[in-house]
Amino acid sequence: MTQEPAAAQGGQQQPPVTKRLAQFVHEVYPSDVSGSMREKLKELLLDYIGVAAAASTGADSTTAIHRGIANFDSTPGTNTVLNMGQKYSPQVAALLNGALSHSFDFDDTFAPGCLHPGTAIISATLAAAESADASTEATLTALAVGYEVVCRIAMQLADGSYKRGFHNTATAGIFGCIAAICSLRRLPAETVEMAFGLAASKAAGSMQFLENGSWNKRLHPGFAAYDAFLCVSLAEAGVVGAAECLEGRFGLFHAYSTRDPDLHALVKDLNHEWHFLGTALKPFAACRMTHGAIDIASQLARSVRLDGVEKITVTIRDGCYNIVGVPTPNKIHPQNIVDAQFSMYYQVAAAWLYGAGAGWSVYEKLGDPRIHQLSEKITVIGDATINGLETRMTVQWDDGRRETTSLFRPLGETSNPFTKDRVDEKFFGLAHPIYGKSKAVEIRDMVDNLENHSIRDVMSLVK
Amino acid sequence: MTQEPAAAQGGQQQPPVTKRLAQFVHEVYPSDVSGSMREKLKELLLDYIGVAAAASTGADSTTAIHRGIANFDSTPGTNTVLNMGQKYSPQVAALLNGALSHSFDFDDTFAPGCLHPGTAIISATLAAAESADASTEATLTALAVGYEVVCRIAMQLADGSYKRGFHNTATAGIFGCIAAICSLRRLPAETVEMAFGLAASKAAGSMQFLENGSWNKRLHPGFAAYDAFLCVSLAEAGVVGAAECLEGRFGLFHAYSTRDPDLHALVKDLNHEWHFLGTALKPFAACRMTHGAIDIASQLARSVRLDGVEKITVTIRDGCYNIVGVPTPNKIHPQNIVDAQFSMYYQVAAAWLYGAGAGWSVYEKLGDPRIHQLSEKITVIGDATINGLETRMTVQWDDGRRETTSLFRPLGETSNPFTKDRVDEKFFGLAHPIYGKSKAVEIRDMVDNLENHSIRDVMSLVK
Repeated sequence: MTQEPAAAQGGQQQPPVTKRLAQFVHEVYPSDVSGSMREKLKELLLDYIGVAAAASTGADSTTAIHRGIANFDSTPGTNTVLNMGQKYSPQVAALLNGALSHSFDFDDTFAPGCLHPGTAIISATLAAAESADASTEATLTALAVGYEVVCRIAMQLADGSYKRGFHNTATAGIFGCIAAICSLRRLPAETVEMAFGLAASKAAGSMQFLENGSWNKRLHPGFAAYDAFLCVSLAEAGVVGAAECLEGRFGLFHAYSTRDPDLHALVKDLNHEWHFLGTALKPFAACRMTHGAIDIASQLARSVRLDGVEKITVTIRDGCYNIVGVPTPNKIHPQNIVDAQFSMYYQVAAAWLYGAGAGWSVYEKLGDPRIHQLSEKITVIGDATINGLETRMTVQWDDGRRETTSLFRPLGETSNPFTKDRVDEKFFGLAHPIYGKSKAVEIRDMVDNLENHSIRDVMSLVK
Repeated sequence: MTQEPAAAQGGQQQPPVTKRLAQFVHEVYPSDVSGSMREKLKELLLDYIGVAAAASTGADSTTAIHRGIANFDSTPGTNTVLNMGQKYSPQVAALLNGALSHSFDFDDTFAPGCLHPGTAIISATLAAAESADASTEATLTALAVGYEVVCRIAMQLADGSYKRGFHNTATAGIFGCIAAICSLRRLPAETVEMAFGLAASKAAGSMQFLENGSWNKRLHPGFAAYDAFLCVSLAEAGVVGAAECLEGRFGLFHAYSTRDPDLHALVKDLNHEWHFLGTALKPFAACRMTHGAIDIASQLARSVRLDGVEKITVTIRDGCYNIVGVPTPNKIHPQNIVDAQFSMYYQVAAAWLYGAGAGWSVYEKLGDPRIHQLSEKITVIGDATINGLETRMTVQWDDGRRETTSLFRPLGETSNPFTKDRVDEKFFGLAHPIYGKSKAVEIRDMVDNLENHSIRDVMSLVK
């Protein structure tokens, strides 16, 4: 990464990408949101509601985060937080919903951008839509625009930002949240650009949570959404934001990434090609980078005997290895939920021993000696030739036999999709204990038929 | 910068610096704040009040920033914003006071850390102190602790973070603000450490404002103070923050700086050596990196003729050159105040032609053709062998004569100090038009005798 991206690329003319993205935000209308985009967005919304609602009572961090935010700003407002009753300002509701929907790490993921788009974008959009009593059409449009902006920026950060120590869900997240809020408010492109420019001074989110399983990560999407409301408010009032905040000499890509972004790709076919459609739903409440291995391990466990297994080797992409594979004590023997979520060792051992269907209850086994014994037989390798989420697992028996299984796309990706039945099944599994069976069905039906309801109707059901 | 700082330093044991700083915050008592520290802190506070109050009516950004924040959060609170009348929550008051006190870029600077400590730290401390009705003793202690933490962290970032595109006033600022708020609230060291850990996910502040003279920079100290209140509130409620958030594998120094920090120096002689005492007051409302040259140019103009000057060469440290010397069109011929503040060309030409005493009115000359003509004769050179704020100016006449003048420490640094008379003079110059003469004297006297008043007394005078 050089300080002069244009020069570094042989003087080739670079497109003014921040300006183009700002124009895109203003230019997308409901008529641009196709039927398949709507279906996808409804699935993402339903999944979000289930995951966030379940975390409202199930996540160990919820009480403290809720109390901390309420002490900071308890102003009553117009906005709903899932399963919390109380009403808040849009930004506080977005912060709390953002934290809830990400606390289980069970929310949607976009592999090419190494991020969780929905937890930030849906939180910001719902907050802006509920306070404005927006139409379903406007809300779906804002969701599409927000998702697309965050996915495109994150694709160009990819894991270049992880190496620096930044988390795309947060740093790209704020730009997507701004896009969604501005789309919903129909703000001019100039205002969007200024809000983006201010976001250059608010984009943050550290990977240092990996050190001690801290709750920083759970707060990242909410911080992004909260700060997006601040940046938009300042820009609407005429505050001048930095120009070229993405591509500039001191812009996002220079500051937050070790990787040269492809600026042409960033804005290519805007409003024609919608990358966010590749967003995946998660079948397991663990880091997406462990999912391929969970799937393989749980299937192998049905067909091969654990007796005599000497060694299990899991091979994944280098960038994934840095997040879930480094053999530190808190990865091989995690003592808290966040460490376990980011431990290939724990996830593979638990899936092998107890199957992949445990959901959140897999973390009730943190002290299970069988898991910890099996973890010690596992080796993780980072391989620079592997792309995306491809996972290879080699099992070595004590009689010398070896068997290797590969999975290119874990369940939930476009080419190995969660069917709508599975989406509903996951939702009901999470929502039944919170809302009861009949209300959970009512929520599912309302989201499926969102065009016949308002966002306020949805929020009054999930409150 | 490597991912494994300990290994990179030959395996030498590194001190747990985040933990040590958190302990320091908790361990400093009013009895540790010496008489000379008190005098210094009072001078810094008086200077802050003058600069912020003048910006409340004089800065072009004030109306928009005020409106943008008020639209975002208009909850009435207990806290005063300088010369604004209305009361706000502590965090909103800190945000607004932070923006006011930095809008003129006329506030205090700490050269070894390349930052403005006071605009962030005083804003946070006043907000925490006013809402708690804290004693003067507790307030001065919090100021000392906040200043010291931000200065020490910034010294280890130095200009390594500027190269990445980050602004220390913002990124180190949030840690100093947290230190000040926690000191004032007497929070345990563990809570301070967790609040620091959360700040790792909120530290932000981009240098991209240099592109178009945007107002991002003015917002940086306020953003830092605002987010510090949020992090402290979360930590007080028991939210788990990242461990080793400064020195860790993905911590502040790795993510935000190209420079290897000296972790031993960071925590050496805490509560014995107070680095913040080297904080300088600014005589001129421009980037501190231009001050040496302003001083030389205004003095040369008195003794040498401008006729026949063919070329003026200003030599400064490399890192300074990147900020104020790069010969882009918006530096050689700035069209807005922020660009002019960060233009060595504009500052030297204006000082040569009109002297150094113009104060903020130097920016009324943005369209002055004499300044723009002289600017074209100026060359700026970055020199890797120069340290700190040393400045050399070589004047070349058309008869072949050359003369070089050097200044090692611009006016305001410890070795070339602003005397208390000059501090008062600067304050009155800024405060008279806002508060009137008698009230300005009253404010000065109250700050000089802070021990006999409460912070609420001060705030009710400056409201």
